Amino acid sequence: MRLLFLGDMVGRSGRAIVYDKLPGLIADHAIDFVIVNGENAAGGFGVTEQILTDTLDAGADVMTTGNHVWDQREALVFADRHAGFLRPANYPDGTPGRGMGVYQARNGARVMVSNIMGRVFMAPDLDDPFMAAERQLENVRLGHDFDCVVFDFHAEATSEKVCFAHFVDGRASLVVGTHTHTPTADHMIFDGGTGYMSDVGMCGDYGHSLGMDKDEPLNRFLTKVPKGRFEAASGPGTLCGVTADISDRTGLCERIAPVRIGPRLAETVPDWW
Amino acid sequence: MRLLFLGDMVGRSGRAIVYDKLPGLIADHAIDFVIVNGENAAGGFGVTEQILTDTLDAGADVMTTGNHVWDQREALVFADRHAGFLRPANYPDGTPGRGMGVYQARNGARVMVSNIMGRVFMAPDLDDPFMAAERQLENVRLGHDFDCVVFDFHAEATSEKVCFAHFVDGRASLVVGTHTHTPTADHMIFDGGTGYMSDVGMCGDYGHSLGMDKDEPLNRFLTKVPKGRFEAASGPGTLCGVTADISDRTGLCERIAPVRIGPRLAETVPDWW
Amino acid sequence: MRLLFLGDMVGRSGRAIVYDKLPGLIADHAIDFVIVNGENAAGGFGVTEQILTDTLDAGADVMTTGNHVWDQREALVFADRHAGFLRPANYPDGTPGRGMGVYQARNGARVMVSNIMGRVFMAPDLDDPFMAAERQLENVRLGHDFDCVVFDFHAEATSEKVCFAHFVDGRASLVVGTHTHTPTADHMIFDGGTGYMSDVGMCGDYGHSLGMDKDEPLNRFLTKVPKGRFEAASGPGTLCGVTADISDRTGLCERIAPVRIGPRLAETVPDWW
Amino acid sequence: MRLLFLGDMVGRSGRAIVYDKLPGLIADHAIDFVIVNGENAAGGFGVTEQILTDTLDAGADVMTTGNHVWDQREALVFADRHAGFLRPANYPDGTPGRGMGVYQARNGARVMVSNIMGRVFMAPDLDDPFMAAERQLENVRLGHDFDCVVFDFHAEATSEKVCFAHFVDGRASLVVGTHTHTPTADHMIFDGGTGYMSDVGMCGDYGHSLGMDKDEPLNRFLTKVPKGRFEAASGPGTLCGVTADISDRTGLCERIAPVRIGPRLAETVPDWW
Ligand SMILES: [Fe+2]
Ligand SMILES: [Fe+2]
Ligand SMILES: [Fe+2]
Ligand SMILES: [Fe+2]
Ligand SMILES: [Fe+2]
Ligand SMILES: [Fe+2]
Ligand SMILES: [Fe+2]
Ligand SMILES: [Fe+2]
Repeated sequence: MRLLFLGDMVGRSGRAIVYDKLPGLIADHAIDFVIVNGENAAGGFGVTEQILTDTLDAGADVMTTGNHVWDQREALVFADRHAGFLRPANYPDGTPGRGMGVYQARNGARVMVSNIMGRVFMAPDLDDPFMAAERQLENVRLGHDFDCVVFDFHAEATSEKVCFAHFVDGRASLVVGTHTHTPTADHMIFDGGTGYMSDVGMCGDYGHSLGMDKDEPLNRFLTKVPKGRFEAASGPGTLCGVTADISDRTGLCERIAPVRIGPRLAETVPDWW
Repeated sequence: MRLLFLGDMVGRSGRAIVYDKLPGLIADHAIDFVIVNGENAAGGFGVTEQILTDTLDAGADVMTTGNHVWDQREALVFADRHAGFLRPANYPDGTPGRGMGVYQARNGARVMVSNIMGRVFMAPDLDDPFMAAERQLENVRLGHDFDCVVFDFHAEATSEKVCFAHFVDGRASLVVGTHTHTPTADHMIFDGGTGYMSDVGMCGDYGHSLGMDKDEPLNRFLTKVPKGRFEAASGPGTLCGVTADISDRTGLCERIAPVRIGPRLAETVPDWW
Repeated sequence: MRLLFLGDMVGRSGRAIVYDKLPGLIADHAIDFVIVNGENAAGGFGVTEQILTDTLDAGADVMTTGNHVWDQREALVFADRHAGFLRPANYPDGTPGRGMGVYQARNGARVMVSNIMGRVFMAPDLDDPFMAAERQLENVRLGHDFDCVVFDFHAEATSEKVCFAHFVDGRASLVVGTHTHTPTADHMIFDGGTGYMSDVGMCGDYGHSLGMDKDEPLNRFLTKVPKGRFEAASGPGTLCGVTADISDRTGLCERIAPVRIGPRLAETVPDWW
Repeated sequence: MRLLFLGDMVGRSGRAIVYDKLPGLIADHAIDFVIVNGENAAGGFGVTEQILTDTLDAGADVMTTGNHVWDQREALVFADRHAGFLRPANYPDGTPGRGMGVYQARNGARVMVSNIMGRVFMAPDLDDPFMAAERQLENVRLGHDFDCVVFDFHAEATSEKVCFAHFVDGRASLVVGTHTHTPTADHMIFDGGTGYMSDVGMCGDYGHSLGMDKDEPLNRFLTKVPKGRFEAASGPGTLCGVTADISDRTGLCERIAPVRIGPRLAETVPDWW
């Protein structure tokens, strides 16, 4: 089966490029399953239910999130209503929503998707991400119980990301990092068969600072005194994602390649598309 | 002029691939100036004088460093002896060595190289990196005083890296991020003409964790109790760098592309090579 | 001369106890100079100009601050209008207000007061606090140029606080730590003659969490999801301060003792009062 | 019953004052149960089995620890051999030793002692300290199942400490903070009946930096380059602790007062001693 994973949609620029391109990509390249990280879709901060449904309408099967998940307070309410909406699994028991789900792909495959947040430099108060994955994978045999297992590992530190991926190597189809809003060039298949990419990057305007207008971030670095709020940048967005072909037999990753479409970045699609 | 910048050499694997490939790259592609970050060259921790001279012998004009610069205590002594050795400029006054130098490229160009360390998540006790750059660029007109100005911005957070680059956009030829040991795919030329890449990645073994054997990092994530030391991984290394063509007239960046040679990562060289 | 230094006033509870007790303390115990940290006076977040003038009217000579100084945006404007208002000195050049001032005490003594912020765990983006003090003390001979030199060192980590005090030992009359909102019992006179206390504590309601209503801080520790804003606690406040007698001849500290008046904490005043 | 809790013994100076004073304090003041935090007893870094047994011989019933627990690697082995040795309970399952124990006091009372580590600024990779306590207190009725429940909450941030104490207020006899090596003056009894003190301070030489010779810490703040190792200070130590009388009927705290004996700090013992 063929997966497409798109990184953090940031603001209107991010949403526009995703809504514009995703349906065509699915149709043209026979994508069976689509995951989109939406934690910054609402002006950079969280996601509304409208944006969630628009994104699902555009072809996403699952929206994952991260540290910004609750920035729009309505997410605390709608999280429980949408099976296709995930928040990090390592929030404490009792947190609204779910951190993992099982879905059916267009080709009939059973896909488990998990959203877990790293702690280093970022979320020290969440539960252990490694143990969260261990619990999810207990009693799961890839290729038997599920045809495909994907982790959105939302984290800052590359050490935590790559160690997490080694930890689940052979037990997951794909580990995709999100959160830094910067695509990495280290997509690869690990020795155990798990596909990996440290960060898929964002869908948004790459002419500023991580999709946010650069004036205020730069002001803070220079003056240490806030002048205003952070606002999403409004230039044309670039779509950043990764696509992977997963073995129908083993659930392991057969090939993996980045997808980047739009201005500023070097455009790239898999040579097998 | 044509620049080549190689990311953090990690241990023997990193040194081997650099020493093996660098002379040929310089010869085959008419490279005028080479910068190599060497902060992890000695088993992952710092750099010895022997490694420094070996790297210069292999064709590097300058070795930059970062937070690991003093891991080998001899660096406190030899730093002052080598014009081609840089430590982060935003250490306090009185720190051994220098943070910036001016060099002559093979084509005769005057190249200013600066090594600055970010603070976010990393080095809160260093001086302001933005002000450090401001002082270095005061009275410097790119294209007049120097033909080329390059920053090795050694930092963890992409926000600090990209904001730094916007800060010097139009005043520098190139801002290359180092430290995460993970190459990014966001090489681009900013509106003001400065070439940028968030992180060039490392030269080392990509089959583990940032070039270090994955067993101990993974052990610490899982058990929280150290079992041993961090050791450099010993598998075959991959060379990671970025090359840029700099205008002889303006000192701005005309084109920029990644260079990745070796196993694990998707190999890439500029299409104009 | 006799100094009184009161810790961070938190919200209405903190203001009430200070306004109520300070005039009597000054009169009854012949206090020559009063410093009050006001960074949390406005509902826990910053300080308004009205609160500043009320505090000066109650007998304070100087109001110091800390990381919350700009929480009320009007401080960016009024900071320049009041010689008795200090913000941390290690903000960058160009920041509104001043970080140090020289004042005349009731007994005619010339008092230098400096407000500096620590960086560990707290404000990595500010300038080096040690160098900030060094610059302020350059060319200052205690007992000659000034009769008294006081530092409000606003910091989280006790290591940074005590090392700072050792750094200025013999060059300052008094180093008082603020920010943790918890009074320490380590008031002492260092070998060089500088009086020291790691943290003077807050003036506020000690029945909650650092003067803030405990419900929301506790909620965040338990659920990791914000439920509302942080609000100042509204129970009766306790005044926390330190008093020191400074030698008129040397400017060094002759005796130092805590002052704590109000409910919850063990009341204490100097045995020489 | 009467408890005595002594803060982090630091190096030889800390051990000497504890070994010297503890037997007399127990005898003179009818102390029923003694807890000593020993995480820095071996030259500032961890604890050896010899020091553990010496401390128990001097009258301690339990030795608690903290982030330095494994600095002496032998602790990984002897931790399992001594019921009176505790390491933080929120290490992951499978960690050597135990984080909680039940003991019999001299008066026959059943005392539960728990050692938990805070995460803020300190140990982000440990399990949730609040949930660790919740699990320990499940099915425990203070005054019925145990006569006394004491927490050594080893943490940096006062907010986490005080919120933790509110969390167990009424369910524990005493919450004593350790780790900052600085005694606080906020000992009090909470509304639910739990005795509290943010930090008990250390047993060690108060003339330096947290019991460690001040030269190297100060060097690092000033130069950012290590010159040597951290060494325990060797001047005369001061004993710092807290004593509490616990109701034999309810297990709640009836009175609480600091105990500080030795140079540099203001000496204090309870007025009921
Ligand atoms: Fe994001
Ligand atoms: Fe994020
Ligand atoms: Fe490095
Ligand atoms: Fe580094
Ligand atoms: Fe404060
Ligand atoms: Fe503060
Ligand atoms: Fe300690
Ligand atoms: Fe500790």
